Amino acid sequence: MSETRYEIKPIGVIRSELSSREDAPRQGNEGAPDAWVEMNSAVSKGLQGMTVGCEIIVITWFHKSHRDILTLHPRGDRNRPITGVFSTRSPDRPNPLGLHQVTVLEISGNKLKVGPIEAIDGTPVVDIKPLL
Amino acid sequence: MSETRYEIKPIGVIRSELSSREDAPRQGNEGAPDAWVEMNSAVSKGLQGMTVGCEIIVITWFHKSHRDILTLHPRGDRNRPITGVFSTRSPDRPNPLGLHQVTVLEISGNKLKVGPIEAIDGTPVVDIKPLL
Repeated sequence: MSETRYEIKPIGVIRSELSSREDAPRQGNEGAPDAWVEMNSAVSKGLQGMTVGCEIIVITWFHKSHRDILTLHPRGDRNRPITGVFSTRSPDRPNPLGLHQVTVLEISGNKLKVGPIEAIDGTPVVDIKPLL
Repeated sequence: MSETRYEIKPIGVIRSELSSREDAPRQGNEGAPDAWVEMNSAVSKGLQGMTVGCEIIVITWFHKSHRDILTLHPRGDRNRPITGVFSTRSPDRPNPLGLHQVTVLEISGNKLKVGPIEAIDGTPVVDIKPLL
């Protein structure tokens, strides 16, 4: 197996009222708020054609995660059997990528209001795609 | 905007009969073949609990992509208006992440047969998650 590494460069950042992992719901559909995606001006041209109402997938980098965890109790519930991280959506995983299916609610310059989204304030955004 | 960079470490690699971007269909549901995901043995414990029939999202890193493209004609079709990359699924994008919704067809040690998937042979795999 190659030991090649790649560099991921944030394209933007989440601006949210959620300030810590402890405050955040585990999934967007569990009471998460709306939030702003503030795009880096260097890539904001990539938003061309985005409109209010679009269903998109925001890909984040959970920068506060532990990257050395391979098995865990899903949702931190000790009554659930130990499971491999690749069968869970835990933010603690080798490459802590988060997938957030959200609706574009408002567009203002290089900022998109989206929601609902469970990512905390300051979470780097690394990609945006149309819904699968 | 912070200039922080993060390091993404492949967890595995695609083994496919598709050997070049020119051969590959643009989406998995456009006649793509099945392929093997060969996991790095260092992270194969993370597969615990994965079973045949699971619907998963394989996240790849399109290592042959151009990262400096922000607008393009979707699907390379000059009759389509120029669009920002974040409204397309083009592999050419600032962080060339690919999302592939596939079914687990077979499990053999640290390898998963999945499909259909349009990623070419040698494409790094960076994460696996259960379907959204």
